[in-house]
Amino acid sequence: MRIVQKFGGTSVGSLERIRKTADIVESSLQEGDEIIVVVSAMSGETNRLINMAREMDANAQPREVDALVATGEQVTAALLAIELRRRGIKACSFSGAQAGFQTRGNHAKARISNIESRHLTKRLKQGDVPVVAGFQGVDESGNITTLGRGGSDTSAVALAIAIKADRCDIYTDVDGIYSTDPRIVSNASKIDRISYEEMLEFASLGAKVLQTRSVELAMRYKMPIHLRSSFEPVEGTLVMEEDETMERETITGVAYNRDEAKVTILGIPDHPGIAANVFGPVAHAEINVDVIVQNVSEKGFTDITFTVPRSDYAATIALLETTREKMQARDVLGDNTVAKVSIIGVGMRSHTGVARKMFEVLAKESINIQMITTSEIKVTVVIEEQYVDQAVQSLHREFGLDQPET
Amino acid sequence: MRIVQKFGGTSVGSLERIRKTADIVESSLQEGDEIIVVVSAMSGETNRLINMAREMDANAQPREVDALVATGEQVTAALLAIELRRRGIKACSFSGAQAGFQTRGNHAKARISNIESRHLTKRLKQGDVPVVAGFQGVDESGNITTLGRGGSDTSAVALAIAIKADRCDIYTDVDGIYSTDPRIVSNASKIDRISYEEMLEFASLGAKVLQTRSVELAMRYKMPIHLRSSFEPVEGTLVMEEDETMERETITGVAYNRDEAKVTILGIPDHPGIAANVFGPVAHAEINVDVIVQNVSEKGFTDITFTVPRSDYAATIALLETTREKMQARDVLGDNTVAKVSIIGVGMRSHTGVARKMFEVLAKESINIQMITTSEIKVTVVIEEQYVDQAVQSLHREFGLDQPET
Repeated sequence: MRIVQKFGGTSVGSLERIRKTADIVESSLQEGDEIIVVVSAMSGETNRLINMAREMDANAQPREVDALVATGEQVTAALLAIELRRRGIKACSFSGAQAGFQTRGNHAKARISNIESRHLTKRLKQGDVPVVAGFQGVDESGNITTLGRGGSDTSAVALAIAIKADRCDIYTDVDGIYSTDPRIVSNASKIDRISYEEMLEFASLGAKVLQTRSVELAMRYKMPIHLRSSFEPVEGTLVMEEDETMERETITGVAYNRDEAKVTILGIPDHPGIAANVFGPVAHAEINVDVIVQNVSEKGFTDITFTVPRSDYAATIALLETTREKMQARDVLGDNTVAKVSIIGVGMRSHTGVARKMFEVLAKESINIQMITTSEIKVTVVIEEQYVDQAVQSLHREFGLDQPET
Repeated sequence: MRIVQKFGGTSVGSLERIRKTADIVESSLQEGDEIIVVVSAMSGETNRLINMAREMDANAQPREVDALVATGEQVTAALLAIELRRRGIKACSFSGAQAGFQTRGNHAKARISNIESRHLTKRLKQGDVPVVAGFQGVDESGNITTLGRGGSDTSAVALAIAIKADRCDIYTDVDGIYSTDPRIVSNASKIDRISYEEMLEFASLGAKVLQTRSVELAMRYKMPIHLRSSFEPVEGTLVMEEDETMERETITGVAYNRDEAKVTILGIPDHPGIAANVFGPVAHAEINVDVIVQNVSEKGFTDITFTVPRSDYAATIALLETTREKMQARDVLGDNTVAKVSIIGVGMRSHTGVARKMFEVLAKESINIQMITTSEIKVTVVIEEQYVDQAVQSLHREFGLDQPET
């Protein structure tokens, strides 16, 4: 099999960890697999570099910050190649530019536009093991770019697609996706297989193990991702196309995100284009709006409520104060102590009454639901942050996800 | 004027030092000069990276060590560009590859074959200030290469030639070339102007302020080098074509090198090809032979004595022991406590008796001369290391180089 193996920051966080990573690569090669490695910077290194840039200039130019930060992954790639060579493996390190990663868009948030992979493919055919610096590429003008935090996952998946790999293995410090956060529910269970759609819902809800863009990309090209631990040699979670081999529980997991704030605009004249008036300036300010709910409240007037990340709360409120007059809104209210709780599962498609059951469970716990939004495979509610643990625990139990006590 | 400014490791050794470097660049721009900057890695950084590589594998593959080490200069270039941008200067960092440095030859010892400088020239015309990572390039296969220790000087001079600069300013932690080592002769005097040929003799004798290759390159293309301090705003030493404006003292300076060892091969049959038999294997082992003296000692037999760096002494002796039989030599002797002392000066060309005077001075000091070698502008003697200070002091004084006491 041809496999892209991606190792995150903690998996290459020290020379000792890089040696362990080399163990994994070596044993995969011994099994006859063709391996391309993608690495992150050693944990802490990206922050060290960014802090130097900030100490120099709090508003350091993004082009230069990218050039600076990109060295982090190059260092890891070279060190891992050195260790593999020591073992007699024909490894070669490549920067993103050398590996053919072409990007477009802004510095620090670039997107991969193309991977000119002929060079790497040639190396693979010669029996070499390319070790590629993740998270980076070059734009059409030859400037070094980075893909934004977590972008190494996307590098790995994009590369796997470009070189027609059979699978992309993403090694990290967790051993898979769990039915919910084990810190909240001690008998949460590891999910063996999960569909891309479900993984996307988990990722967008703050399960930080896989970058959303990498999952979207894998889904589009049907590239299986094996999410696994570089610390323990156990099977992880396989992210793949939904198929009949997947267990069809009603729901797959319960997710939550505490990083939520809620903003309500009261009494806007209800006519076409009002949403554009509200969300145009918000989008322009690069604030990510998540859940949006609109109700007709009085004759000819409407209320709009939406959630944003807490870090954007103050900016959002300030922005809406300046646009309130133009929106002809009566008032702007906010609350930055809310959280989202979601149940996720492709099983919902064939089971009825899942949302109703969720509301019943929360009602029984006397947890007030402030907003509701649903998708085909997810039901999300916004609640007071203080009830998150209680909500997650009761939902996990009532939907039958608790592992039997052993 | 169009000037390449090169800053060495100590000149960019901390964020504070990088700010001082930005001061120098900024004031040059204010004088209306067009500036391209070349930087070394922050002092200590190259060693930090090499130590990581060695800790991984004492014989780490050179290709990977180059890729690793090259990040050091990239970091400095980005940080300096960030600081210049903060001051409103349109600076842009470039890796060696981005700046168009093409190399050939071995990793860690690559030579610049070409600089594809159109990109940088275009930037200059736009009023940008390119900040280039020195010491590095890419070979014909796209591998990152480094030029070897001190290679940033060569990067700077080569770039100055490629972009037709008027001058190459090399900023370092000394403020110029002195008539001898001020640690040995307290009233040594700074040399205002020195010819390339003299500078080469100083450099090859261990004056580590300028890499020999950079001076050779500057000489071939008549590129003036201003060697100066980034710590003190004083004039340094201008290295340039010999011309009538230079003072014509008999000698320009006294240099020495303690890092010498002497090897003598006794009683080799004296026939053509013997030197090749001796020095072929030595060169093959990449040992740099310096002074060579050959005498006819007995009828049909000859002795050969040569010097090598002390670090190569043991290897040289061991090598000659294995080839002694083939050379039909009677014996191999060695001494690793010798040193070289040289007097240097273009003035020798028009002054007679310079060598004789040197021998007289040393004789008066009762210092025994073991080997002598001369060039058009240099006389070198090999003596016991313990007499170096005494020899340098007396020569400096007797050739009238001591500064008048103030």
